[in-house]
Amino acid sequence: MKEQIHSPAGFQLYTTQCGLKSGDQEDLAVILSDRPCQVKAAFTTNKVKAAPVLYDQKIIQSAKPVRAVVINAGNANACTGEIGMQHTRQMVNAVSSLGSTNPDEVLVLSTGVIGVPLPVDLVLAGIQKISTSRNTQSWLDVAEAIMTTDTHPKVASIRSPEGYAITGVAKGAGMISPNMATMLSVICTDASLSSEMLQKIQDIWDLTFNRIVVDGDMSTNDTVVLLANGASGVELDLESDFLQNFSHICTHLAKSIVKDGEGATKLVTISVQGAQHLADAEKISRAIATSPLCKTAFYGADPNWGRIICAAGYAGATFVPERANLYLKKNGQTILLFEKGQAAPYNEAEAIELMQSESWEISLDLGLGRGDFWLWTCDLSHEYVTINGHYRT
Amino acid sequence: MKEQIHSPAGFQLYTTQCGLKSGDQEDLAVILSDRPCQVKAAFTTNKVKAAPVLYDQKIIQSAKPVRAVVINAGNANACTGEIGMQHTRQMVNAVSSLGSTNPDEVLVLSTGVIGVPLPVDLVLAGIQKISTSRNTQSWLDVAEAIMTTDTHPKVASIRSPEGYAITGVAKGAGMISPNMATMLSVICTDASLSSEMLQKIQDIWDLTFNRIVVDGDMSTNDTVVLLANGASGVELDLESDFLQNFSHICTHLAKSIVKDGEGATKLVTISVQGAQHLADAEKISRAIATSPLCKTAFYGADPNWGRIICAAGYAGATFVPERANLYLKKNGQTILLFEKGQAAPYNEAEAIELMQSESWEISLDLGLGRGDFWLWTCDLSHEYVTINGHYRT
Repeated sequence: MKEQIHSPAGFQLYTTQCGLKSGDQEDLAVILSDRPCQVKAAFTTNKVKAAPVLYDQKIIQSAKPVRAVVINAGNANACTGEIGMQHTRQMVNAVSSLGSTNPDEVLVLSTGVIGVPLPVDLVLAGIQKISTSRNTQSWLDVAEAIMTTDTHPKVASIRSPEGYAITGVAKGAGMISPNMATMLSVICTDASLSSEMLQKIQDIWDLTFNRIVVDGDMSTNDTVVLLANGASGVELDLESDFLQNFSHICTHLAKSIVKDGEGATKLVTISVQGAQHLADAEKISRAIATSPLCKTAFYGADPNWGRIICAAGYAGATFVPERANLYLKKNGQTILLFEKGQAAPYNEAEAIELMQSESWEISLDLGLGRGDFWLWTCDLSHEYVTINGHYRT
Repeated sequence: MKEQIHSPAGFQLYTTQCGLKSGDQEDLAVILSDRPCQVKAAFTTNKVKAAPVLYDQKIIQSAKPVRAVVINAGNANACTGEIGMQHTRQMVNAVSSLGSTNPDEVLVLSTGVIGVPLPVDLVLAGIQKISTSRNTQSWLDVAEAIMTTDTHPKVASIRSPEGYAITGVAKGAGMISPNMATMLSVICTDASLSSEMLQKIQDIWDLTFNRIVVDGDMSTNDTVVLLANGASGVELDLESDFLQNFSHICTHLAKSIVKDGEGATKLVTISVQGAQHLADAEKISRAIATSPLCKTAFYGADPNWGRIICAAGYAGATFVPERANLYLKKNGQTILLFEKGQAAPYNEAEAIELMQSESWEISLDLGLGRGDFWLWTCDLSHEYVTINGHYRT
C-alpha cells in the first residue's frame, strides 16, 4: 500500500507555502474535485471546537454535495472568537473563487497552535498564489503540507480491479485520543457509492481512527472527510470490495499516526477480551493506553505487568484479578505474564526481547464475559517530553 | 512545621534493614503504642488490592482498637495470590510477639514492586532484629525506611498548646492519583478524640490526600492511618484545635508527595470555579492535572493555555469557552490568559516568569454556576520518563 500512490480521477491538488509554519515548508493544501462529491465527515467531540470544525459541521448537516477541501497547518484557528469564524469564511470564499464552486461546497480543516488568530492575509495570498501556479497533482505534497509535529507524511492508496481508486492523507502525532477522528484526514475516491455504503463509513472510522491513543488529549480540530466524486464512472454497492479497501486505507493511516506519535518508539496494540460488557473492555483498554506508568514501561521494554494490572484495577470496570490472564503477543509468539491473580512463570529475558521490538500486543483476558475491545497506542519517551516541554510547540 | 519533630507520648518506633531495597537502606518500620489506639484508616479504591490492604480492611471493619503498624518498602505484596495473605499474617504474628499485642491489633502497610512474592524470611528476620536492638524513637528514620522512589523523607509534626502532639509520616512519588489516600501515611497523636471528631477525619483526607495527582495512576496499596493513643491524657472534642492541626499535617504531607512527584520540578494548584456542579469542576481539574500536554507545558514554563482549554473541553463536563476565564496566579499576582473564548492580551514574558517558579496556580472560572474544585499536581519532566522508563523501577 505504501509503494504506489494512485490518483483518483477528477481531483486537482494544490499546495503552497503561506508562512504559517516556520522554515521553508509548505503549509496549505487544496483538494478540488471537477464535479460534486458525495461526502461523509466526522469531527471532534471536544466541547471546544475550532472555527473550521463549527463551519464544516453546518455544511455537512445540509447534506449537500461538496467540491473542495482546504487545509492549513501551523494554526488551528481554535479559541479565536468571532474573528476566527470570519477568517474561515474568507478562506472558503477564496477557494470558492479558485475552483469556481459555490461557497457551501468548500470544507476547511486547520491544525496547529490553539488561540492565536489566523494570519488570514498570508493564507489568502497563498490561495491566490495557488490559483496561478501550484497545481501539484502530488498526494505526497498534500500530506507534507498538512504536517505539524509529524516526522513524515502519511498517505495510503489502493486501486481496485473494479476500476476505482482510493487515496487518503492524514496528519497527527500529538493531542491524539480517540472519540471522533482525533486528527485531520481527507480520503478521496473516484467511485460513486450507494447510500447503504455511506452509512457504513462511520463504523469503519470507529474501528480505525477512533481506536488510536498517543497521549489521551483530544484535539479541538479533529476532522476526517471522505469525498467520492464518481469520476471513474464506477458505481458501487455493498457487493463491491470498496468498504474492505476503505477500511485498509483508514487502518493504514490510523496506525501511521500512532507509529509517528510524538516521541513514539513502539506501536502497541492493547487488546482486552472476556469483559462483562464491551464498555468495560473499552474502559480498561483506554486506562492502560493512557497510563504514564504503562507507557514508560513500554518505552523501557519492561514487562512490569503490575502496572498494567493496576491500571485495569482503577479503570472503573468490573475486574477480578483472580479470573484474569495477561499475555504479551507478537507474530504467533505468546508469553503468559500473569495468571489468575499472580505472576506466571515466564522467561523474563524473552519478554524483554519481545517488548524491544517495534510492534507487539498486550492481551488481557478478563475471564468474565464476552466483551472485547482493542486499540493502538504508543510508548511515552523522553522525546515526547522534549517535543512538548519546550516553549510553544 | 518542618523545623521540629515532636514525639507523641506512648509510641515506640523501630526501623531496620531487611534487604528488600537495594543498597544500604532501611526498609522496615514498626510503630508500637504502649496502649490501645483509636484508629481511622482509608484505603485505595483500586479493584486490585494488595494483601495487606485486604487484611487491614478486615481489622478496621471490626472497629476494635489497634496498637501497632508495621510498614515495609521495596515490595508491595500485591498480586501475590494466597501466599501474599499468608506473608501478611506472618508479619502480623511477628510484630504481635514483638509488641505483646493481640494479632488483631496490628496493621500492615507494604509498598514497592507489584507481583513479586514478599521475601518473608528477610522481613521476619528484620522484625526479630528490631526486637533486640533498634528502638530508634526517630520519626525521620521511620519516614526514611518507608521511602521507595521518594527523594526525601516526609514528616510533619505539631505540638498544641492544648497539651498533645501530632506527628505523621508519608511516602509516595509515583503511581499517585486521588481517590482514597493514594500513598502510605501513618499519623499518630497522643490525644484522645471524641467520636464526633473521628467522623470528621475522612473529610480532611478528602481535602488533602485525595486532592493530589502525580501521574494519574492509582496504586494497589494506598493506605492512610490515624492512630490516637490518648497517652498525653488530653481528651479533645470539636471545640479543640485538633482538627485544624490535623488538617495542617495532612496538607503538609500531601503537598510533600506532589512536590516530590517522580521527576517533578513544580507544584501546580489546579483550581476550577463557577462550574454548574462540583462534579464538573472535579472532572475538569482532573483532566488538566492528568493531561500529558498540560503537564509538559508546565515543565517547559509555556503559558500554552490552548492545551488547558482543550483539556477542559474533553473532560466530559459542561464547558462553554465563551463564558470562561483562565488565570495564572502566584502570591497575589494574577495574569488573565484567556477571556471569554479567546486569548487575553497578557504579557508573555511575565507569564513565563511566573511559570518558571516552583509553585503557582492555574485558576479556571467557568462562569456557569457555583461548583468549585481544586487539587495539587506536578509537571511531567524528562526525569519522570527516566525513572519509570528504565527496567523495573
